[in-house]
Amino acid sequence: MSRFLSKRLFALSPYVAGEQPQDMQYVKLNTNESPFPPSPGVIRRLSEAEAGKLNLYPDPEGRALRQKLAEYYGLKSENVVLGNGSDEILSFAFSAFCDGENPVTYPATSYGFYPVFAALYGLRAREVPLREDFSIDPEDYKQNDAMVVLANPNAPTGLALDLDEIEGILQANPDRVVVVDEAYVDFGAQSAVALIPRYENLLVVQTFSKARSMAGARLGYGLGSEALICDLQTIRNSTNPYNVNRLTLLAGEAALDDAAYYEENCRTIQKTRAFAAEELKKRGFVLTNSLANFLFAKCPGLPGKRYYQLLKERGVLVRHFDKPVTTDYVRITVGSLAQMQRLLEATDEILARPED
Amino acid sequence: MSRFLSKRLFALSPYVAGEQPQDMQYVKLNTNESPFPPSPGVIRRLSEAEAGKLNLYPDPEGRALRQKLAEYYGLKSENVVLGNGSDEILSFAFSAFCDGENPVTYPATSYGFYPVFAALYGLRAREVPLREDFSIDPEDYKQNDAMVVLANPNAPTGLALDLDEIEGILQANPDRVVVVDEAYVDFGAQSAVALIPRYENLLVVQTFSKARSMAGARLGYGLGSEALICDLQTIRNSTNPYNVNRLTLLAGEAALDDAAYYEENCRTIQKTRAFAAEELKKRGFVLTNSLANFLFAKCPGLPGKRYYQLLKERGVLVRHFDKPVTTDYVRITVGSLAQMQRLLEATDEILARPED
Repeated sequence: MSRFLSKRLFALSPYVAGEQPQDMQYVKLNTNESPFPPSPGVIRRLSEAEAGKLNLYPDPEGRALRQKLAEYYGLKSENVVLGNGSDEILSFAFSAFCDGENPVTYPATSYGFYPVFAALYGLRAREVPLREDFSIDPEDYKQNDAMVVLANPNAPTGLALDLDEIEGILQANPDRVVVVDEAYVDFGAQSAVALIPRYENLLVVQTFSKARSMAGARLGYGLGSEALICDLQTIRNSTNPYNVNRLTLLAGEAALDDAAYYEENCRTIQKTRAFAAEELKKRGFVLTNSLANFLFAKCPGLPGKRYYQLLKERGVLVRHFDKPVTTDYVRITVGSLAQMQRLLEATDEILARPED
Repeated sequence: MSRFLSKRLFALSPYVAGEQPQDMQYVKLNTNESPFPPSPGVIRRLSEAEAGKLNLYPDPEGRALRQKLAEYYGLKSENVVLGNGSDEILSFAFSAFCDGENPVTYPATSYGFYPVFAALYGLRAREVPLREDFSIDPEDYKQNDAMVVLANPNAPTGLALDLDEIEGILQANPDRVVVVDEAYVDFGAQSAVALIPRYENLLVVQTFSKARSMAGARLGYGLGSEALICDLQTIRNSTNPYNVNRLTLLAGEAALDDAAYYEENCRTIQKTRAFAAEELKKRGFVLTNSLANFLFAKCPGLPGKRYYQLLKERGVLVRHFDKPVTTDYVRITVGSLAQMQRLLEATDEILARPED
């Protein structure tokens, strides 16, 4: 910390991204990336010809991609804002709709970035514990004076609310924005996009990082009423109007043209998820009913941190969240079938090893 | 505006980026892009093989590129922070080093984003008028209780302070950060990077958008003391740790490997600038002594806005800043020789036309 840093940031504790170790090849199941490459159409669009135009700024309005996303969802361009990843959209929302008088509420166990945004923007945050079984109780968000932020499915639990439950929360909060963070929605949960025409307080946040195999390109988006999106555009244009680069804009368009490829990948991941969950259960694991591209799993007889360490020693990287509620569990990305088999082999070794 | 927007943002007026008209082909001299494509090495690195890895997140630390930048400048990785364009670095600096009690100061005529950041973060801003001749008086920044932000060369005037003047400002502000925004430094001005080891309050901001022909890839960086950079990393990790995408990280590395290509381009632009300035002077224009990749020019007998409009009708796009101080002038990007010849032809038509 320098002696120039603003006092209001002294206690700010940044988000900790999943490890990206450079020292050996891991079976990397710790940051919920897709095991599939981008579609052939995406790779074709990122051609030398486009690279040769990088001396020119991207369209700051991202018109072509916003129009294509709007068509995909049956909305208008004015319902779409683009971000340098969905984290940026979340950051815009915390900045636009909250302040010293207008707090935020989210589950105490959820995406680790929400408390960081709250701290960064100096917000009061009501963090609501999950139920015993890790599920979200919609009633907790109905007597409320704060912006609601819900990951659906939630992370790291993978549990999802259904559309009726989301709608109940929207109806109970007519004067507050409800952010539904759907980073993981494409693996089996219900999207709230269909509710946008009826709820001006709904902001749906999605990403190309997971189901669309583009974590490395950084592309997220927000969908909502024109007025909500207009506010987010104001923030975007007041921080970084050229926030999405030329190649990523093009890749996003090409990905939407190849929807069938990504849908097939999602079905494969769902099948692999079912297989891996079943195999872990056979070995005595306890799992939530995850609808995301990860499993949230408790190893029999081992604290989460120890299981994580023993897997890492065997070249398999998963994620452990070192908090009381989640300490018994690890989060395991659903990768390829071969990757999950490596996980199971490493797990069998761990379960068969002599006691520590 | 939605009814959910935070009151503190009601008066926020976003930055207005240069026009990106889609309706016809313009000779586009309005956003200071390079007329040269990225180097062949950059284009080669953005290969299909890398596009095929976009399912994986980029290195959130940007280690390889930071190391390369550090070597290039004779610094350490800890002196380098990467941004999604240099606007993001500027945004981080305003957020980290200013607050309700700690204001900011910058020239009243400079990069239009500074007042936007000040408004976004709710800062008091002391905007200091330029001298009559558009130059910055260093003395104006020496009796000061605010973070100093200076574009050097300044925009849209192109005038530069020399290194002694920058150093005098650093010495007069030991307890305040001095940001030197060097977006345009590669076209003839002196960089303050050499002062970093001696001034812990110095933050130099640079970009790959101008001299390095990568406006479309979005890559900027901050260089400063370890403590300053650490603070900016805290902000970066609290908003968007994966702020620079995989392809842009690679392109940045490749661009540093091809330094000679870009240096040659900068020399060409300086020659073209001298040619275009001379030709405009022959036609009665008044110009500043711009050391940037743009000219700041007053057309004889025509207000800046009218000259801008008449050029646009003739397919040549320049930028006019509609404020009293700059109203007589336009800013003209120094493009290729052919583009400047088109500008001169259009100007000759305008000067020869019957009176309005």
